[in-house]
Amino acid sequence: MDVVEHVTQKASEARQAARVLANLSTGVKNSALVRMADALEEQQATVLEENRRDLEEARRQGLSPALIDRLTLNPKGILEMARGLREVAALPDPVGEIVRMWRRPNGMQVGKIRVPIGVIGIIYESRPNVTVDAASLCLKSGNAVVLRGGSEAIHSNRAIADLLSTAGQKVGIPHGAISLIERTEREGAMAMLKLDRYIDVIIPRGGEGLIRAVAEHSTVPIIKHDKGVCHTFVEEDADLGMAEEICFNAKVQRPGTCNAMETLLVHRAVAQNFLPRIVDRLKKAGVEVRGCPRTRAIVAGLKEATEEDWFAEYLDLILSVRVVENLNEAMQHIATYGSGHSDAIVTQSYDRALKFLREVDSSAVFVNASTRLNDGYQFGLGAEIGISTTRIHARGPMGLEELTCTKFIVFGSGQLRE
Amino acid sequence: MDVVEHVTQKASEARQAARVLANLSTGVKNSALVRMADALEEQQATVLEENRRDLEEARRQGLSPALIDRLTLNPKGILEMARGLREVAALPDPVGEIVRMWRRPNGMQVGKIRVPIGVIGIIYESRPNVTVDAASLCLKSGNAVVLRGGSEAIHSNRAIADLLSTAGQKVGIPHGAISLIERTEREGAMAMLKLDRYIDVIIPRGGEGLIRAVAEHSTVPIIKHDKGVCHTFVEEDADLGMAEEICFNAKVQRPGTCNAMETLLVHRAVAQNFLPRIVDRLKKAGVEVRGCPRTRAIVAGLKEATEEDWFAEYLDLILSVRVVENLNEAMQHIATYGSGHSDAIVTQSYDRALKFLREVDSSAVFVNASTRLNDGYQFGLGAEIGISTTRIHARGPMGLEELTCTKFIVFGSGQLRE
Repeated sequence: MDVVEHVTQKASEARQAARVLANLSTGVKNSALVRMADALEEQQATVLEENRRDLEEARRQGLSPALIDRLTLNPKGILEMARGLREVAALPDPVGEIVRMWRRPNGMQVGKIRVPIGVIGIIYESRPNVTVDAASLCLKSGNAVVLRGGSEAIHSNRAIADLLSTAGQKVGIPHGAISLIERTEREGAMAMLKLDRYIDVIIPRGGEGLIRAVAEHSTVPIIKHDKGVCHTFVEEDADLGMAEEICFNAKVQRPGTCNAMETLLVHRAVAQNFLPRIVDRLKKAGVEVRGCPRTRAIVAGLKEATEEDWFAEYLDLILSVRVVENLNEAMQHIATYGSGHSDAIVTQSYDRALKFLREVDSSAVFVNASTRLNDGYQFGLGAEIGISTTRIHARGPMGLEELTCTKFIVFGSGQLRE
Repeated sequence: MDVVEHVTQKASEARQAARVLANLSTGVKNSALVRMADALEEQQATVLEENRRDLEEARRQGLSPALIDRLTLNPKGILEMARGLREVAALPDPVGEIVRMWRRPNGMQVGKIRVPIGVIGIIYESRPNVTVDAASLCLKSGNAVVLRGGSEAIHSNRAIADLLSTAGQKVGIPHGAISLIERTEREGAMAMLKLDRYIDVIIPRGGEGLIRAVAEHSTVPIIKHDKGVCHTFVEEDADLGMAEEICFNAKVQRPGTCNAMETLLVHRAVAQNFLPRIVDRLKKAGVEVRGCPRTRAIVAGLKEATEEDWFAEYLDLILSVRVVENLNEAMQHIATYGSGHSDAIVTQSYDRALKFLREVDSSAVFVNASTRLNDGYQFGLGAEIGISTTRIHARGPMGLEELTCTKFIVFGSGQLRE
């Protein structure tokens, strides 16, 4: 079978499974998730063995240490995946919720009810835990999933997907509900992007290149999980102690994530006071600080921040810093260079807090909190499949609800169109 | 200026305008809509004159009577457009609504607030009234709109768009809020589909060919308003008097629309009783009925319905009829041949009514009501930009709310990520 046939078959099996999944009871879905968690724990050794095969190949091919790190599974990570499955089982089932229902003057009752999207494609890189996260969230929300991971993780992904499918089928999850594409040639991914007759939406998770290629070629609707060029603006009325904690957390707590701060904006009235202390603390934590001319006039010895820096998603211990005149200049900077991901203001001013919340157009806008909190668990959505930077369907952390759509239902008693 | 430059400039102006529109007060938007209505009435003669130019050209080119009919404006139609503008002014503004807000254990308040999508592209054919509908709904929901109508309506569309823009700008609507593409070469539309840096979503409204071409080439997310192969299933427990009224209404009241019935499914237990009377009534109204073998055995002289008929969206006084064994066979037929648009059951059975509502996967599912009621006004959404057949973002009639997205807002007091 050639790769395009393989991908087409997997997607078509997922489509078939989706019809069954849409009408499965919550009980069946939950017991499948719990079985899957048990199976992961019981078959830990197999998964780790397959992961070792991927790692050997990765080293042989000279992949970067960062990539190898993301690819590596260990017993603790597997237990976490199993815990994640049980947590998803414990979440409320979004399917069947009547979002709203009302009565029309002609007596008919019109309602909107939550239903699964259908078949969700996930295209992702490296991290084999995405296989578990995506499969569990799609299953709970009644969707079939077509998983297309990177070639570097194929053995790990196959071991995990097999084990999940087998465990699920034992309690009535249909074949095809979790479909892993086992042929990782580029051609296969390209074919997947054209299968709009089987796949309802594709979520690309990975670097800019992956996302651009998917957006360029897909005839299936996509929901991007794109980069985060995130800002914190320390306003003139900020509590500078709080500002220091928030900025430090946003930059240092986990710099490799999309919601980590990349650019710090400081109001000129507090720059003299605030910049030396935060730069000092960041430097001690190993952060390279790059500044605008006014920043460098206040703190000596900093590298100059260039135009390129303002656009940069470092995903690393690097920070660009700019001193601005006022709130409008800060918001103008964010509108020009930001990516609409996560942006924060630190201020005690009521008016300016509300203005920032209203006018900054990002998936999450914060007053007096770290941008690192833009996350499904932190927001209380229970679990997330990622953070959408697309403006339609879902924006920000995508939980179970965002993996559903609605349909209208009408209870009539003979109503006609006049 | 070449056509691609023209389109790019229009889209870029819309992007600029969108930033201003997002923060305009409801009062300004409403007074602009009312001014636009006044201007349409006052400048009726100009619009009709420009429409005559389109009609002359259409006749010269030998366009079909149906197309010419859709293109034709008259004074009554213009008054209706003006009334539509005033109705949109009277609708509640969706922007700024806090959809939900909750408190997290760490004390931060997380909320979801409705904001405009940004720039909405509309690609449409023939009907110049779409220019008014789309412009008014986009303006009210705080979006800029890039309109790309067909070449056959260019004079009408230009007259209308100019007049709306001029009226709006008098009360503070920014230049670019309503951007009509004035060059209708195919190249321009193709360029528009690639302008994802300026346009957030494209809604194609028109025939299958148009929608397929847009879906094929667009790198901008699209929300399809695709065809309706709509069914009514007359169940064994139906009130046959009600069934007759519903079927007649669904087929005859306005056969050229996407929510008109194209296929009638009848339970075998009531076929003998029901088919002769409904076919007789439909025939008297000029409907051509095509039947399956069992239908033709009951009602003599019908043309045979072929496999092609079951897939057909006639948009005309033609109906295909099939006798089925039971509810499951009816639902199987709908799943196989339907387009997921609007489907109805007529029944007095509680269980089967609920089963049909639950399992039929269409944008609107009806019990005991005409499929023709799948409509924004009929559902009480106030006004609609069309009926989405896409499963993400919006499904079914799209009102003002569906032209918005949300962002998360966080009121913190120093919260950090642990």
